[in-house]
Amino acid sequence: MLKGIPAILSPDLMKVLMEMGHGDEIVLADGNFPSASHTQNLLRCDGHGIPALLEAILKFFPLDTYVEHPVTLMDVVEGEPFQPTIWQDFEKVIQEEHGPALQMEYLDRFTFYERAKKAYAIVATGEAAQYANIILKKGVVK
Amino acid sequence: MLKGIPAILSPDLMKVLMEMGHGDEIVLADGNFPSASHTQNLLRCDGHGIPALLEAILKFFPLDTYVEHPVTLMDVVEGEPFQPTIWQDFEKVIQEEHGPALQMEYLDRFTFYERAKKAYAIVATGEAAQYANIILKKGVVK
Amino acid sequence: MLKGIPAILSPDLMKVLMEMGHGDEIVLADGNFPSASHTQNLLRCDGHGIPALLEAILKFFPLDTYVEHPVTLMDVVEGEPFQPTIWQDFEKVIQEEHGPALQMEYLDRFTFYERAKKAYAIVATGEAAQYANIILKKGVVK
Amino acid sequence: MLKGIPAILSPDLMKVLMEMGHGDEIVLADGNFPSASHTQNLLRCDGHGIPALLEAILKFFPLDTYVEHPVTLMDVVEGEPFQPTIWQDFEKVIQEEHGPALQMEYLDRFTFYERAKKAYAIVATGEAAQYANIILKKGVVK
Amino acid sequence: MLKGIPAILSPDLMKVLMEMGHGDEIVLADGNFPSASHTQNLLRCDGHGIPALLEAILKFFPLDTYVEHPVTLMDVVEGEPFQPTIWQDFEKVIQEEHGPALQMEYLDRFTFYERAKKAYAIVATGEAAQYANIILKKGVVK
Amino acid sequence: MLKGIPAILSPDLMKVLMEMGHGDEIVLADGNFPSASHTQNLLRCDGHGIPALLEAILKFFPLDTYVEHPVTLMDVVEGEPFQPTIWQDFEKVIQEEHGPALQMEYLDRFTFYERAKKAYAIVATGEAAQYANIILKKGVVK
Amino acid sequence: MLKGIPAILSPDLMKVLMEMGHGDEIVLADGNFPSASHTQNLLRCDGHGIPALLEAILKFFPLDTYVEHPVTLMDVVEGEPFQPTIWQDFEKVIQEEHGPALQMEYLDRFTFYERAKKAYAIVATGEAAQYANIILKKGVVK
Amino acid sequence: MLKGIPAILSPDLMKVLMEMGHGDEIVLADGNFPSASHTQNLLRCDGHGIPALLEAILKFFPLDTYVEHPVTLMDVVEGEPFQPTIWQDFEKVIQEEHGPALQMEYLDRFTFYERAKKAYAIVATGEAAQYANIILKKGVVK
Amino acid sequence: MLKGIPAILSPDLMKVLMEMGHGDEIVLADGNFPSASHTQNLLRCDGHGIPALLEAILKFFPLDTYVEHPVTLMDVVEGEPFQPTIWQDFEKVIQEEHGPALQMEYLDRFTFYERAKKAYAIVATGEAAQYANIILKKGVVK
Amino acid sequence: MLKGIPAILSPDLMKVLMEMGHGDEIVLADGNFPSASHTQNLLRCDGHGIPALLEAILKFFPLDTYVEHPVTLMDVVEGEPFQPTIWQDFEKVIQEEHGPALQMEYLDRFTFYERAKKAYAIVATGEAAQYANIILKKGVVK
Repeated sequence: MLKGIPAILSPDLMKVLMEMGHGDEIVLADGNFPSASHTQNLLRCDGHGIPALLEAILKFFPLDTYVEHPVTLMDVVEGEPFQPTIWQDFEKVIQEEHGPALQMEYLDRFTFYERAKKAYAIVATGEAAQYANIILKKGVVK
Repeated sequence: MLKGIPAILSPDLMKVLMEMGHGDEIVLADGNFPSASHTQNLLRCDGHGIPALLEAILKFFPLDTYVEHPVTLMDVVEGEPFQPTIWQDFEKVIQEEHGPALQMEYLDRFTFYERAKKAYAIVATGEAAQYANIILKKGVVK
Repeated sequence: MLKGIPAILSPDLMKVLMEMGHGDEIVLADGNFPSASHTQNLLRCDGHGIPALLEAILKFFPLDTYVEHPVTLMDVVEGEPFQPTIWQDFEKVIQEEHGPALQMEYLDRFTFYERAKKAYAIVATGEAAQYANIILKKGVVK
Repeated sequence: MLKGIPAILSPDLMKVLMEMGHGDEIVLADGNFPSASHTQNLLRCDGHGIPALLEAILKFFPLDTYVEHPVTLMDVVEGEPFQPTIWQDFEKVIQEEHGPALQMEYLDRFTFYERAKKAYAIVATGEAAQYANIILKKGVVK
Repeated sequence: MLKGIPAILSPDLMKVLMEMGHGDEIVLADGNFPSASHTQNLLRCDGHGIPALLEAILKFFPLDTYVEHPVTLMDVVEGEPFQPTIWQDFEKVIQEEHGPALQMEYLDRFTFYERAKKAYAIVATGEAAQYANIILKKGVVK
Repeated sequence: MLKGIPAILSPDLMKVLMEMGHGDEIVLADGNFPSASHTQNLLRCDGHGIPALLEAILKFFPLDTYVEHPVTLMDVVEGEPFQPTIWQDFEKVIQEEHGPALQMEYLDRFTFYERAKKAYAIVATGEAAQYANIILKKGVVK
Repeated sequence: MLKGIPAILSPDLMKVLMEMGHGDEIVLADGNFPSASHTQNLLRCDGHGIPALLEAILKFFPLDTYVEHPVTLMDVVEGEPFQPTIWQDFEKVIQEEHGPALQMEYLDRFTFYERAKKAYAIVATGEAAQYANIILKKGVVK
Repeated sequence: MLKGIPAILSPDLMKVLMEMGHGDEIVLADGNFPSASHTQNLLRCDGHGIPALLEAILKFFPLDTYVEHPVTLMDVVEGEPFQPTIWQDFEKVIQEEHGPALQMEYLDRFTFYERAKKAYAIVATGEAAQYANIILKKGVVK
Repeated sequence: MLKGIPAILSPDLMKVLMEMGHGDEIVLADGNFPSASHTQNLLRCDGHGIPALLEAILKFFPLDTYVEHPVTLMDVVEGEPFQPTIWQDFEKVIQEEHGPALQMEYLDRFTFYERAKKAYAIVATGEAAQYANIILKKGVVK
Repeated sequence: MLKGIPAILSPDLMKVLMEMGHGDEIVLADGNFPSASHTQNLLRCDGHGIPALLEAILKFFPLDTYVEHPVTLMDVVEGEPFQPTIWQDFEKVIQEEHGPALQMEYLDRFTFYERAKKAYAIVATGEAAQYANIILKKGVVK
């Protein structure tokens, strides 16, 4: 543990966040996401929910301001009436750092999988909520 | 994730618990414990407290009934008035599985370190409480 | 060994089952299946039959309820009168967990091989029955 | 699988049996034995009993005829009335290959552990019987 | 060494033969064959001729009875009058195990190379005879 | 790069600082120190001076308040009149974080080497000043 | 450290510069460049600016005189008025070694990324200036 | 060192020469050749010229007599008047082993690079002469 | 294969023979010797007898002329009337290279084992003769 | 190759020279020295003599001025009249860099071996002269 670094961030996760550069993406995946089969760079964060992890990450991680949608969510299947309440938790956390203007992108399940495969890393959490997967695109530290 | 396996148990931790045999020990170490320098078999469980982890482990892990003290704690420095309240949490969790008769062993800091070095594995948690380190000795599944 | 975990499940197999996510597939291959040449993630379970292994796995492993056929078998060669009796053992085990409604998929030998190559892992058993290979698609733990 | 090789013998176990030479020892350990912590060369044989494994091994593995006790068992704790019936299974299997004259050695638990540490390999089985651990010393093929 | 296992079979070769399944192929290559550049799974058997090795392998290794040609040879260059006498040694060894009906397949040098690249393993021998390379396709143990 | 993390801290160094626990030590070694031969855990920080690195590290790294001397320097050889001015730079940086009360320990060259060998890691810098090596003992984050 | 080798050059960087041959390229990347995701051969040079590193490298590294543009920069986005002042630092350093005649090549961001992926290595610096990434093509030592 | 093996041949180079088979190629590359980026199997022979190395290799290495050009050189750029005198050294060495009839093949620089990428290994020498790169195709030992 | 190198010498064995220096020892072990457990550097030569291997090795390998006994044999157990005829084969091979004056050393079984453990490498052959193990101490190439 | 770096220095050797620090030692060993068995850090420099290598190394490598004998040679066996002429070559090379005052240390063969085992690295050359082994102790770059 270090002063000022949240305990939820593992040494390996911190290292990965530091290694990433402009345009690299990281996936925060829920407990049912096929994380291990979609990346060569898997970080485990078992037992934790994504909002708490997201908050800790965004304390250090700049979002990409050069693209329209630096944050990507997995969309609800067409026709399904389910409305993921965890999205509001995400918005709240993100707005604290980046203001209300940031618009998120929504991808269907299999398009999201393909995007995840190209990410720099996937963090496998224990998040139990549905449609809780989220991709962050790293911006620039000035 | 699997049915009936708590989300806090990582795949690697479950594997280690299964590999261990009669008499092998595992250390659940708090966030300030020098875990990485005291084992060749480090499992990280960043951000979690020890009572929740202990409860999940003891669901599967038998304590050694062949020894007097299958559970070991790091004792408070002599003369220090501090009374670790987390010990009561430990007792509560352990008694649910093993009854009130189980007596714990208390080792001073450096004796505890030496014991930890010989353990099968150390789990580095994010536990913030003081004197929260605990060693479990594995028993027999009959 | 752990309480409540069948002895037939090796630590590595348990780890793999936990790592897998929604949509990932695992192959339980009979003793003659070319397992080692069809995967980078081989788990050996020499000397065991598949029904006993299947039963132990399904105790923890949810089948995918989002697809029509979460279970896939290798079909008998066209025209061959052989009727694999082991399929009934499979059905019995699966129905205990998932009810009689689940319909299995049947693939010819070489299509099955291609599917197996894409699986998350292959478990090489010692099953002696013919046409005993089976693929399980993982579902969601809610 | 190969013609004439029992399915219970994994490729790695067969390789190890072939690599061993005169005087090298192998431990067949029961499900509760601390196998992983007592060897650098661990072979897993989860879910199997030791008599079946022993029989398959002795089909190929010569016992050392240059020593008094080529077979070693873990003895019952002094004073404990328990009489391991599995020892009779062992004797029956061994006598089929080596005749009734072979005398076994009995070591107490911790002496057995020290001996196991020096063995060429340990095979971790799922044997549920107590006091079922056995060490075999390899002899010469003439 | 083990009872009943020919000394010419190395532990690694035995392991590979056991790992192989239905349809997998192994190449026994002569001393001049470019073995190391045509496989990721190279087994060395320096100084031995192929007939002796073939005989030891076929003691355990079933040939594939589901295909027309479970055995493949490298054919003599068109127009070259050379008649490889080692082929008769091969036929003799193979017929002892499989009867005279088995028909071999003949491939020209570069087609043989391509086939070898896809094999499960290549055994580099010291065979000095020309056109002595041979591919065996594994069958089923019933 | 991350917000709030000085650019001089490499991802690997940050990871090591996070992995360390109470009582673990890290050596900041000057450009002539035999770093690679005194550790299994070498971090390179070529071209940088130690004061700048020290300042970045102490922003996150707590010093051990349970010992008398959490900071150790390599002492000037007895009788040598040289007075390392870099020690004042160290003191200034350390006092900003820990106040003026902290007393440093001084070890002769070869005792310092032995101590360095037991450290958790050594950071090889490009510091050109003489007697600039420094050891930090990690404290507790509360 | 060695006589005549600048302290900013790490042993690994020196090794890479020596390994490179005619036509191989190396990227000096600024602190926000996605270095780790664009190479299999990453060298870290955290906390340093690129001009100082460039000067140390060019002391030993010949530029390719067989091509028109042995030096490549990442161009400013079209329409953006920003004029990178660091380019003048680069020119000054390069001209000292190669004279004023050398003409640099300018690539847009994503073309630069593709070029970087094919480079022999990427050096991740801590350079804070924008548009500071630079690719050097190695020439011949005569 | 061994009796009868020239000191210029390293143990690794000898091993590679022995592993190669009929048709495999090895590149002897001059000091400026981009060796490390054109092979996965790099052998270093720093500081040596190619003629001495070639002579030592050809003492053991048969050239391929089944092809028209078992030796390949990198040709001088079209129009350049340079006449590599080292080619005469090569011819002299090769003729001693293979007679004057052997005709060499000449490839332009980039075609040579592509050919080198497919070779079994590249030996990086310190040869200072221009156009000194040479590829040898291995023949058969009868 | 190479011109002038016997086919019985594997590439790895040749490499090891070249790597060895003055005073280093190599063990040629018979088929029952516990080779794998007595070395970190095991070379397999399955199926071959030791005299043929010895002859091939001594063609290149100088024996140490600075010691009294550069060749060591495992002695017959005291009192046993057995007279190993293979020793005459060894003498014949050695005398061809070194003349009749060379006197061999004889060590009892367990002393031989301890000596073997310190050897540079052990070659595991398939030699079936008893008391056929032999240690060679390398001399100097002048 | 790089400008100003002699071609005889391999990238790995240069890296090792840079990694070494004050007091670390490197052995330049002749062709018969048991280099591979006396170090974990072996650098090969086959075919080269030691004087040329020594000259290239000393261009960059400072000798330790804090000890009486920064250079150590292997002494001639007592009573042997042999006078190694290569020592004069060494002296000449060393004096060019360090002046005539430097006194060398002489160790007998087996003491030299023990010293070599503790060195940072051993460079195995092809030096044919007797008593040509030499140890250099690194000094400080100021």
